[in-house]
Amino acid sequence: MKKLGIIGGMGPLATCDLFRKVVENTAADSDREHIHIIIDNNSAIPDRTAAILRGGENPLPKMKESLSRLTEAGAEVVIMGCNTAHFFYDSLGEDCQVERLNMLYETMAYLKSNGIKKAGLLASSGTVESGIYARAAEKYGIELVCPVGIEQDAVMGVIYDGVKAGKADYDTAEFCKAVNTLFSKGAETLILGCTELPLAMDMYSLSFPAVDPTLILAKAAIIACGYKLK
Amino acid sequence: MKKLGIIGGMGPLATCDLFRKVVENTAADSDREHIHIIIDNNSAIPDRTAAILRGGENPLPKMKESLSRLTEAGAEVVIMGCNTAHFFYDSLGEDCQVERLNMLYETMAYLKSNGIKKAGLLASSGTVESGIYARAAEKYGIELVCPVGIEQDAVMGVIYDGVKAGKADYDTAEFCKAVNTLFSKGAETLILGCTELPLAMDMYSLSFPAVDPTLILAKAAIIACGYKLK
Repeated sequence: MKKLGIIGGMGPLATCDLFRKVVENTAADSDREHIHIIIDNNSAIPDRTAAILRGGENPLPKMKESLSRLTEAGAEVVIMGCNTAHFFYDSLGEDCQVERLNMLYETMAYLKSNGIKKAGLLASSGTVESGIYARAAEKYGIELVCPVGIEQDAVMGVIYDGVKAGKADYDTAEFCKAVNTLFSKGAETLILGCTELPLAMDMYSLSFPAVDPTLILAKAAIIACGYKLK
Repeated sequence: MKKLGIIGGMGPLATCDLFRKVVENTAADSDREHIHIIIDNNSAIPDRTAAILRGGENPLPKMKESLSRLTEAGAEVVIMGCNTAHFFYDSLGEDCQVERLNMLYETMAYLKSNGIKKAGLLASSGTVESGIYARAAEKYGIELVCPVGIEQDAVMGVIYDGVKAGKADYDTAEFCKAVNTLFSKGAETLILGCTELPLAMDMYSLSFPAVDPTLILAKAAIIACGYKLK
């Protein structure tokens, strides 16, 4: 049985969500049958999107500090729930050999093992433009389709003006058009590649074939730590 | 600004709840304005109720290990979300001088500052019999009334057979009788002194004057760390 470390704070609610998904999906009848989890909700980590797209402060040094803090505290498997932060995944491991799981690779492996050949990506423009999902998809032989132009704007609208703004009556008509375009282009399922999007599914009672990378990562972490899924 | 440490795992979902309540009640417009929180969800801590009432394994050594792990990782204010664990609160601080907040004292201070003179306690039999809430109430000059006999059994029923069993259609009639008895005995509000009970309020659409110690602790921690409430 291994201890799990979570590099958090990117953002804090997404970290709560990942933590909860690990706990809720672990087969355990008592507190003591759960995984020992250490979380560093490090709010000092600079904005990932700003660093990738606009030359903002490099978040890597603070991410490395979190990784060290977790391994020094005993973490043996380390994960992080932020999609965009995975841009720095390889660099993060330069000085630290602890076992880590890559949320994007776990998602692609899951799609591949389920026979999916073509998937649509719903994510923030920062995540899309960084190319991290495209590279992960290529590595696993999955074809990826993304919304373009005003349809990508509609995805950003749901994330920022809908979920992040806590607007329960946000009009998702344009977003649903973007979703339908991806299916019409042959996507067999969609990747909810932004931690706000699983929330949007509930908040706006949306229903379409989709996978949640946070949930896939949580389940992979449970297995990697030697525990069973509920 | 101080870093917050959370001794968790007692239980894991209660730890998620405390974490979320800290995040959701912090005045912050971006990830970087949030509190740096370090959580040790230490599932190795033995059962507190079994130790207090039935001579089970002493949880204090493992709780002390978590406290050390958190302070070594940089935590400057430390809290824990488990009511029953507060039985060990004083002993926990024997070898460690880090600033800590006591959830029970924070709750009594909150009641006192709101002019409450008599409160009812809804908690597990272990928490009630340990006398920790009675001692905290006495310290703050609050009169405490508790359900007795079959009415305390009805509280345990909601906690174990209702919430912990995930039974959405659990019959809360007996529980509501116990609640009404406390009000008829002069309680001005009730303390939800078990981490399952705030969940029961939502799950069974219950509505009566009550305070949630987890929420009071979360808000006190935000202030103690130098942040503002939302």
